[in-house]
Amino acid sequence: MANAEQRVYRLGELADRIGAQLKGSADCKITSLATLQDAQPGQLSFLANPVYRKYLPATRAAAVIIHPDVAADYTGNKLIHHSPYLGFAELTRLFDTREDLPVGIHPSAVIDETATISATAAIGPHVVIEAGVRIGEHCEVGAGCFIGKDSAIGDHCRFAPHVSVYHGVSIGSQCVFHSGVVIGADGFGFARGSEGWVKVYQLGGVVIGNRVEVGACTTIDRGALENTVIADGVIIDNHVQVAHNVKIGANTAVAGCAAIAGSTAIGADCTIAGGVGIIGHLDIADGVLITARTLVTKSIAMPGSYSSGTPLTRTGVWRKNAVRFNQLDEMAARLKRLENKAKQ
Amino acid sequence: MANAEQRVYRLGELADRIGAQLKGSADCKITSLATLQDAQPGQLSFLANPVYRKYLPATRAAAVIIHPDVAADYTGNKLIHHSPYLGFAELTRLFDTREDLPVGIHPSAVIDETATISATAAIGPHVVIEAGVRIGEHCEVGAGCFIGKDSAIGDHCRFAPHVSVYHGVSIGSQCVFHSGVVIGADGFGFARGSEGWVKVYQLGGVVIGNRVEVGACTTIDRGALENTVIADGVIIDNHVQVAHNVKIGANTAVAGCAAIAGSTAIGADCTIAGGVGIIGHLDIADGVLITARTLVTKSIAMPGSYSSGTPLTRTGVWRKNAVRFNQLDEMAARLKRLENKAKQ
Amino acid sequence: MANAEQRVYRLGELADRIGAQLKGSADCKITSLATLQDAQPGQLSFLANPVYRKYLPATRAAAVIIHPDVAADYTGNKLIHHSPYLGFAELTRLFDTREDLPVGIHPSAVIDETATISATAAIGPHVVIEAGVRIGEHCEVGAGCFIGKDSAIGDHCRFAPHVSVYHGVSIGSQCVFHSGVVIGADGFGFARGSEGWVKVYQLGGVVIGNRVEVGACTTIDRGALENTVIADGVIIDNHVQVAHNVKIGANTAVAGCAAIAGSTAIGADCTIAGGVGIIGHLDIADGVLITARTLVTKSIAMPGSYSSGTPLTRTGVWRKNAVRFNQLDEMAARLKRLENKAKQ
Repeated sequence: MANAEQRVYRLGELADRIGAQLKGSADCKITSLATLQDAQPGQLSFLANPVYRKYLPATRAAAVIIHPDVAADYTGNKLIHHSPYLGFAELTRLFDTREDLPVGIHPSAVIDETATISATAAIGPHVVIEAGVRIGEHCEVGAGCFIGKDSAIGDHCRFAPHVSVYHGVSIGSQCVFHSGVVIGADGFGFARGSEGWVKVYQLGGVVIGNRVEVGACTTIDRGALENTVIADGVIIDNHVQVAHNVKIGANTAVAGCAAIAGSTAIGADCTIAGGVGIIGHLDIADGVLITARTLVTKSIAMPGSYSSGTPLTRTGVWRKNAVRFNQLDEMAARLKRLENKAKQ
Repeated sequence: MANAEQRVYRLGELADRIGAQLKGSADCKITSLATLQDAQPGQLSFLANPVYRKYLPATRAAAVIIHPDVAADYTGNKLIHHSPYLGFAELTRLFDTREDLPVGIHPSAVIDETATISATAAIGPHVVIEAGVRIGEHCEVGAGCFIGKDSAIGDHCRFAPHVSVYHGVSIGSQCVFHSGVVIGADGFGFARGSEGWVKVYQLGGVVIGNRVEVGACTTIDRGALENTVIADGVIIDNHVQVAHNVKIGANTAVAGCAAIAGSTAIGADCTIAGGVGIIGHLDIADGVLITARTLVTKSIAMPGSYSSGTPLTRTGVWRKNAVRFNQLDEMAARLKRLENKAKQ
Repeated sequence: MANAEQRVYRLGELADRIGAQLKGSADCKITSLATLQDAQPGQLSFLANPVYRKYLPATRAAAVIIHPDVAADYTGNKLIHHSPYLGFAELTRLFDTREDLPVGIHPSAVIDETATISATAAIGPHVVIEAGVRIGEHCEVGAGCFIGKDSAIGDHCRFAPHVSVYHGVSIGSQCVFHSGVVIGADGFGFARGSEGWVKVYQLGGVVIGNRVEVGACTTIDRGALENTVIADGVIIDNHVQVAHNVKIGANTAVAGCAAIAGSTAIGADCTIAGGVGIIGHLDIADGVLITARTLVTKSIAMPGSYSSGTPLTRTGVWRKNAVRFNQLDEMAARLKRLENKAKQ
C-alpha cells in the first residue's frame, strides 16, 4: 500500500523497478508523475498514445517513459519500455499520497469476540464485524464498514469507508472495495402469490477471487441457491449492478453503470463498456467486447465486438428519423413491393 | 425473520406448510433447497420452468415440488403444487442462514430520548435515531443506519446496515431495505435565478406502504410539496432512482437500474424491467410491462407490453445500420417519390 | 439553513422578500406552500406553468404568486413577480422543516487532533474526520460521514448522513451533498500486464467549487494525475457517475443516472438530462442540452439540443421494426438500386 510522505526517487532506481532501459542520467531526481503537456521539472512522464506525440518536443518533464520504436524522437532522459503505459502504471503506486490506516483495531469498532482478525490488519473507527468473520493479514477495513457473520476476507484487501459486506461472503486476497459498495445483498427474487409477491429468501452467497477491484456504489448480490462468483483479476467500476448468480470470468473489465441481470455468465478477458445492460440467463463467451450502452438480449458465443443503439444527432433531425423507426417494417414492405413491380 | 441454526424438516411438514399433496415418504429428511441439477441427497428441489424438465430424470434431490400436470413424470418423493415456484418461495424462509440482530439497543447507538422504540426492536451498533422517531415491534435496524427526525416505521421492518432515512418519512410494516438505500433525500428541484440556480427546498415527505422491499443503493426522494408515495407490496431492485412526487401503485415490480423522473405516476401490478427510464409528469396505467432498457417518453393508458431500442449485433454491422438511422427520414421521402413514379 | 418550528408569515413580508408587487391584504397569514389544486386556506401558491392555469379559478389558496401578464385573471391576494417559479423557490427555504444539527462535535465522532474545525460547525454522531482536514464556518457534517486526510471544506456546506469524502478533496462554500455520495474514490484506471490488470494509482484529487449540490448515491472520482473539477453552481442529481478528470462547467445541471466517462469536459450552462451517457475524452460546448438517455459518442462544438435513441411503442410493433434496423444498410442499397433503375 501507499506511503504518506512524498518521496524522491533516482531515475535509475525507477528504471530498475519497471525493467526499462535507461538512457540519460541515472541520478536525475524524480518527485512525481505528470502528463507530457503538464510536466514540470522533477516529474516523470510517458508517451503511450501516439496522439500525444506532439507534446514530446516541448515537454518540461525530467524524463519520459517511451517505446523503443519512437525513443529516438526524444533526446532527454528516457526509460525505454515495451509498454510505456504499463511502466507508468507500475510506478504510480510509489507516488500515491493515500495514507494507510494504522495497524490495529480502533477502540470505537464493534468486533464480535468470535471474529478472527490478523494482528497485521487495520480496522478503522466505527467498523462493525460480526461473529465468525475472518480477516487476513495486512487488510485495511475503513471507517464505518460492516462485515457480516461468517464472511471471510483473505490477505492484503482494502475496504474504503462505508463498504457493506453481508453474511456468508467469501473474498480472496489483494482486493479493493470502494466506498458505498454492497456485497451480498439479497438478489431480486419473488414469486407471485395470491395476495402479492412472496419473497424468495436468497440462500446463496458471493465468492470473489483474488486481485478484484470494485468501484464506488457497486452492488454484487448474493445468489438465490448457488453463489454469485467473481473470478480472479476482475475489475469493476462504479455503480455497477451484478445480480444474483451472475458469474464473471477472470480478468474481465466492467465499466461504470453497467448492469448484469440474474444468472448470466460472462467469460474471461471480456470488456463490458460503460452503461451496458445484459439481461438474465445468458452466456457471453471469453474475449467479448460490448460497446458503451449496448443492451445484450441474447447469448454471445463468439469473441468480437457487439453493439446496439442509434447515433447522436441534433434533436430536430433525430425526431424526424426516430418517427420513421416505427415505420420501418412498413417501409420494408413498400420497398419489397416496388422491387417486385420493377422486376415485372 | 430467519433462524441462525440449520434445521432439518420432515417432508410431510413441508408439504403441510405450502398446502401441497405429498406423494412418497413423509418422514424423508430435508436439510436444504437446491436446483434439480445441483441437488444432493437431503435436498428439496422444484420444477417450475419447463426448460429444466430435462434435469428431472437424473436429479439426486430427495424430493421435488412439481405441478400436477407433470407430476407423473417423476417417480421419487414429490410435493404436488399448483405453483411449484411459489411453493419453493414459501419454503426458502425456513432455510435462510441470516441471523437476526439481538433484540435491544446496542450501546454504541445514538438514540434521541424523544424517540419511541418498541421493546421488541433490535437496534444495531452505531445506529443514529433522531428526535420523535417511532420504530414498531420486531423491527431490525442494522449497523450504522440513520433514521431522521419524526420518521415513523411500522412493525416487522428490516433495515440492512447503512440505510439512510431522512426526516419526516413514513414507512409501513413488513418492509425490507437493503444497504445503501436512501429514502427522503431532496428531489432535484431548482429555479433559474439571475446568478445561477436557486434551490427549491423539498417540503414534502415519502410515504411507503406495507410489504415493500427496496434493493441496495436505491434512492427514493422526498416530494417537493406533496409526498412521494410507494404503495403496498411494491418490490424494487438495486440502483433504482425514484424522483420526487413519483407514485408507484400496489404490487408493481421495478427491476435494477430503472429510473423514474419527477411526478410520474405508475399504476398497480406493473413490471418495470431493468434499466427502464421513465421521464417526468407521465401516467402509466395498471398492468403495464415495460421491457428492459426502454425509455418511456409519453403516458401509457392501456395495459400491455411496451419497448424501445435497437437489437444487438456485431459492431461492424451495427455501425453501417446506425449511420442509416440518421438518413431514415430522407430514405422515406425517396421511397415515396419512387412509389409516386411507379403509380404514374 | 432551516428552522425547525413552523412559522407564520405576513403576505407583505413575503412580497418584500422576493421583490414582488403585492395586490391584496398585506396582513394575510401564510403558514405554508402548496400547488394551486391542493392549496388550503393559509397556503401560498404559484402559477408558473400555463398548463395549471385551469386550477386558478377554483384554488383555495390564500394568495398566488403570478406573472404580470396573467395577473388580471386572478382577483384574490396576489404577489406579482416576473418569474413566479423563482419567487416560489426563494420562499421554500422559509418553510423547510429539516432541523439543523446542533453546533459542536458529537462525542461519538472520531476527529483527528490535527483537523481544523470551525467552532460554528456541527459534526454529527459517528462522523470520522482524518488528519489535516479543514472544515469551515457553519458547516453541517451528518451522522456517519467520513472526511479523509487533508480534505478542505469551505463555509456553509451541508453533508447529509453517510457521505464519503476521500483524502485530498477540495470543496468550496455553500455546497450540499446527499446521503451515499462518494467523492474522490479511485478512477477506473488499469494497464494490461502480462498477468492481468495493473492498477494505475489515482494521484489526482477532486476540486469542487461553490454552491454545488450533489444528489444521493452520486460518485465523483479523483483524477489520475490532474484533478476532477466541478465548477461553481453545478447541480447534480442522484446516481450520477463522474469519472476521473472530468470537468463540468459553471451552472451546468446533470440529472439522475447520467454518466460521464473519463477526461470529458462539459461546458457551462449545459443541461444533461436523466440517464445520458457521455463517453470519455470528449468536449461539450457551453449551452448544450442533451435529451434523456442519449448516448454522446462525439464532441459537441455548437450549443443546441442533441439526442439519440428510438421511440416508445408496443412491444409487438417494436420487435418488427427493430428487426428491420439491422437490415437498414441493405434496405438503403436496395432503394438506391431502384432509383437507378427508375432513372433509366
